[in-house]
Amino acid sequence: MDDKLTALQVLLHEVDDLNMAAALLSWDQTTYMPPGGAEARGRQIATLARLAHEKFTSEAIGRLLDDLRPYESSQSYASDEASLIRVTRREYERAVKVPAEYVARATAHAAAAYQVWTTARPANDFAAVRPCLEQTLDLSREYSSFFPGYRHIADPLIDASDYGMKAAMLRPLFAELRQQLLPIVQAITAHPPADDACLKQPFPEAQQLAFGADIIRQYGYDFERGRQDKTLHPFMTKFSLGDVRITTRVKEHDLSEALFSTLHEAGHAMYEQGINRAYEGTPLATGASAGVHESQSRLWENIVGRSLGFWQHYYPKLQAAFPQQLGAVPLDTFYRAINKVQRSLIRTDADEVTYNLHVMLRLDFELDMLEGTLAVRNLAEAWRERFAADLGITPPDDRDGALQDVHWFSGLIGGAFQGYTLGNLLSAQFYSAALAAHPSIPSEIEHGQFGALHGWLAENIYAPGSKFTAPELIERVTGGPMRIEPYLDYLRAKYSALYPL
Amino acid sequence: MDDKLTALQVLLHEVDDLNMAAALLSWDQTTYMPPGGAEARGRQIATLARLAHEKFTSEAIGRLLDDLRPYESSQSYASDEASLIRVTRREYERAVKVPAEYVARATAHAAAAYQVWTTARPANDFAAVRPCLEQTLDLSREYSSFFPGYRHIADPLIDASDYGMKAAMLRPLFAELRQQLLPIVQAITAHPPADDACLKQPFPEAQQLAFGADIIRQYGYDFERGRQDKTLHPFMTKFSLGDVRITTRVKEHDLSEALFSTLHEAGHAMYEQGINRAYEGTPLATGASAGVHESQSRLWENIVGRSLGFWQHYYPKLQAAFPQQLGAVPLDTFYRAINKVQRSLIRTDADEVTYNLHVMLRLDFELDMLEGTLAVRNLAEAWRERFAADLGITPPDDRDGALQDVHWFSGLIGGAFQGYTLGNLLSAQFYSAALAAHPSIPSEIEHGQFGALHGWLAENIYAPGSKFTAPELIERVTGGPMRIEPYLDYLRAKYSALYPL
Repeated sequence: MDDKLTALQVLLHEVDDLNMAAALLSWDQTTYMPPGGAEARGRQIATLARLAHEKFTSEAIGRLLDDLRPYESSQSYASDEASLIRVTRREYERAVKVPAEYVARATAHAAAAYQVWTTARPANDFAAVRPCLEQTLDLSREYSSFFPGYRHIADPLIDASDYGMKAAMLRPLFAELRQQLLPIVQAITAHPPADDACLKQPFPEAQQLAFGADIIRQYGYDFERGRQDKTLHPFMTKFSLGDVRITTRVKEHDLSEALFSTLHEAGHAMYEQGINRAYEGTPLATGASAGVHESQSRLWENIVGRSLGFWQHYYPKLQAAFPQQLGAVPLDTFYRAINKVQRSLIRTDADEVTYNLHVMLRLDFELDMLEGTLAVRNLAEAWRERFAADLGITPPDDRDGALQDVHWFSGLIGGAFQGYTLGNLLSAQFYSAALAAHPSIPSEIEHGQFGALHGWLAENIYAPGSKFTAPELIERVTGGPMRIEPYLDYLRAKYSALYPL
Repeated sequence: MDDKLTALQVLLHEVDDLNMAAALLSWDQTTYMPPGGAEARGRQIATLARLAHEKFTSEAIGRLLDDLRPYESSQSYASDEASLIRVTRREYERAVKVPAEYVARATAHAAAAYQVWTTARPANDFAAVRPCLEQTLDLSREYSSFFPGYRHIADPLIDASDYGMKAAMLRPLFAELRQQLLPIVQAITAHPPADDACLKQPFPEAQQLAFGADIIRQYGYDFERGRQDKTLHPFMTKFSLGDVRITTRVKEHDLSEALFSTLHEAGHAMYEQGINRAYEGTPLATGASAGVHESQSRLWENIVGRSLGFWQHYYPKLQAAFPQQLGAVPLDTFYRAINKVQRSLIRTDADEVTYNLHVMLRLDFELDMLEGTLAVRNLAEAWRERFAADLGITPPDDRDGALQDVHWFSGLIGGAFQGYTLGNLLSAQFYSAALAAHPSIPSEIEHGQFGALHGWLAENIYAPGSKFTAPELIERVTGGPMRIEPYLDYLRAKYSALYPL
C-alpha cells in the first residue's frame, strides 16, 4: 500500500478520535452528566469539534489527497483504497469550501434561533421566530453559494446528509408518492380507528426494557459492542465500530414508546456495528447517507417489528411478560393497535401510512422557501392549508404546525427532512431485494429467526459503510434506481389485510 | 487584566478541554463501556493526551509566559493573576524539559512492563519482572537527568506528584515517624485483634450505596455537581469543577468496603468541588499535590468517618438500615471492628496504624534504588527483611511482597508512594488547625453536622486549588512546616482508648 495512504490514515484517525470523543461527551451529557457539568461540557464539545474540523481541513490532508491521485487511479473504483481516497476527498472538498467565519456565524445564529424557538413554540408565537427564520433562510442560501454550479439551490444542502440525491429527482418522485398515498390514507381513515387501549395500560419499566433488549439481541444487535441507556429522546451514537450505543425512553403507560424506539435505534446501530472493521477511524466507517440509515431503522421497526408474522412468534412471549395486561387481549387486537392509522398533527407520533405526508410537506416548503416562491412570512398559513389538504385536519395553532420541529430552528433550511421519507422508501426496496435473495425470510421471522435477513443486510448494506453514495448503493443492491413502488406495494398489501381499501 | 493573560487563558482552556475529555473517556472505560470499545478507546485517550501535551508545550504558551513576566511582577504573589502565571510557568517548564522521544519510550516501556507484571505477579515470578524493573529504574534516573541541579535524584520524580517536597526533608521525617510508630503497633498487636465478624454479614448492595450516599451528602459532597458509579477499583475523577464524580465497589459480605471507599473518594471530590470556580479550565483548578489531596480523603474517611463521635450519631441509623445484621451488635463492638489493627501483607487493606509502615518501606526502597544502594536484583529479599522487621511477619511469597503494587510496573520508580503518608500526616495536621479555629467541630460531628469543618476546609484548603505548593499551603494554614506530631497524637489518643498502650 502507498506510504502516503498510510500517512493519510494516520491523520484521519486523529480526526476520528476527536469526533468520537465529542460523541461520548454528548452521550454522557444526555445520560449521566449531573446538572453542574452542563456549562463546561458545551465548551468541551465545541473545542473538540473545532479541533477535528481544523485537522480535517488541514493542508497536510489536502496535499496527501493531491499526491494520491495517481495511486487512486491505479485501483478499482470499488477497492477499499480508491474508495477511502475518493470519499475523503469529497468530504474534504465540501469542508474546505465553507469558510470558518461562516461556520462560526451560522453556529451562533442556530444557538440564538433555538433559544427563541424554545419560548416561541409553547407561546404559539410564530411572529417571534419569523425574523430568525428569515435569517436562517439567508444563511441557507449563503451555504449553497459556496458550491457554485449546483442545479438546484437545495442540492448542496441535501448533499450534506444525503449525498448525491438531487431536488430535481426527489420532487417528482415525492409528488408521485403523495398522489398515491392520499387515496390510501383516505380509504383507511374512512373506517373507525383501531382500538389501541391495550397498549395504554401500566407496564413496569424494567420488564419493558428487558423485552425490547431480548428482541434486538435476537435481531443481531451485539451487546458486547454496545449498550442501551435511557434518555429524554431516543438516539443511536457511536464511539468506534466496537462501541455503538442506543438509548430509549420508557413510558409506563404506553407500551409502544420504548418498544418501537428500541427496534428503530437498534436498526441504526446494527448498520454501524456491521461496517467493515478495516474502515475504523476513517470517513468510510459510517453509513452511506441519512436516507440509507433511516431505511435500516424503519426496516427493523416497521417492516419486521410491526408485521403479523413477527408477532405470531413474539406475542405469546409478550403476553407471558405482561399476563395481567395482555393475557386476555387477542393477537389480532394487539396487531391492529400497533398499526393504528390516524390523521394526526405531530410527525414524530405519526403512523407509517401518514408519516410521509408530514415529511413531504416539509421538503416541499424547504424547496419553495429556498427558491423564493414561499416567503417565511407566509409559512404558517401555507402549513395550515397544505396540512388540511393532505391530512384532512387543520392544525389549531402554529405550535403544532410550522413551529413543530426543532430542525429549522437549530440548523439550516434544506436537507433536514428528505432522509425520513427516503428511509421509508428504501426500507421496502431493500427488503424486497433481500426477499428475492432469501425467500425464506418471512417464515424465519415467524419463528423469531432473523439470520438470513441480517446476513443479507450485513453483506450488502452494512459492510460497505460509506464506500458508495446512496444512489450507487441502491443501484448495486437492487439493480436499479430508487423507486416508490416497493413501499406502496408493502403498504397496500399490509393495510388491505386490515382494512377494505 | 492584561490582554496576554486573557490570551493565555484561552490556550489553557483548550488544553483543559482535551484533558477533561480524556478523563471522561477513561471514566466511561471503567463504568459503562462495552468490551468491544476497548481497542479504539485506548487509542482515543492517547490521542487526546498527546494533543493536550502538544498544545500545552507550544511556543505560543511559552512566549505568552515570557511576555507576562512584567505583569506577574506587578501583582502580589498570592493574587489569582500572578498565581496563574507562576503555576502555569512551573508546569510548562517541567513539561518542556522532558523530550517527546523520552515520553514515547517511557510510555511504551510502561505498557510492556505492565503486561509482564500482570502474569508475573500471579505466578510469583520476580525473576520475570527483574529486567523490566531494571529498565524502569534506568528510565527513572533518565527522567531526573532532565532536571539538572536537583539535590537528590528522587526530587524531580517527587516533584511530579508532590511539588516542593524534597527527599532530604522526607527521609528523616519518615524515619522518625517509623521509630514512633513501631512501638505503637507492637503494643496494639500484643492484644488479640478486634472481632470484625459483624462487618462480614450479607448487606444488600442498594442499601449499602444509599447509606454511603446519605453520609457524603451530609459531609458536603454536592450530587448536583457529581455522581457515584460502580467500578472495579474506587476512584475520583473530574470533568470540570461542576462535574466531579466518584466511584466505589460493593462487597455484599463486607460492609466496610463500599462505605469507607465512599467516604474516602468523597473527601477527594469535595476538595475539587470546592476550588474557586474562577480557576475553571486552568492549571490552578486542581488540588495542590498528591499528599494534600490524600489528606482530604483520609480526613473524611478516618479522622471523621472512623471516629467514635461520628458513629454515636450514625450507628443507630446504620442499625435501622440493617436491623437483622446489626440490631443486636453494640456500638462498641462495631467501633472496634471498623478500627481493627493487625499486621497484614497488603498495603491497600492495611488499617490506619500500620498503613504508613507499608508506605515508608516503599519510599525508602525507591530512594535506595535511585541512589544505587539497593539493586533491583536484591529488592525482593530486601522487602522480606524490612517487612519482617517493621510488620513482624514475613511475606510468604513475592506476589504479596515486592510484586504487590502496580505503581512501579506501570510508571517510574520514585514519587509514587510518599503522597499516601504525607496525606495521613497532613490530615491530622489540618484537622488540628481546624479544631483550633472551631473547637465545636467534635460536638457537631456527634450530631451529624459537618458544616464548620467543611467550611474551614473549603476556605483554607479547597478554594486556593493549586495556587500554593503543598509546603506553602501548610505554612499558610498551620503557621509552620509539616509535622508528624499531630498524626502521632491523633493515633495515640484514639488507640489508647481502645487498647492499653
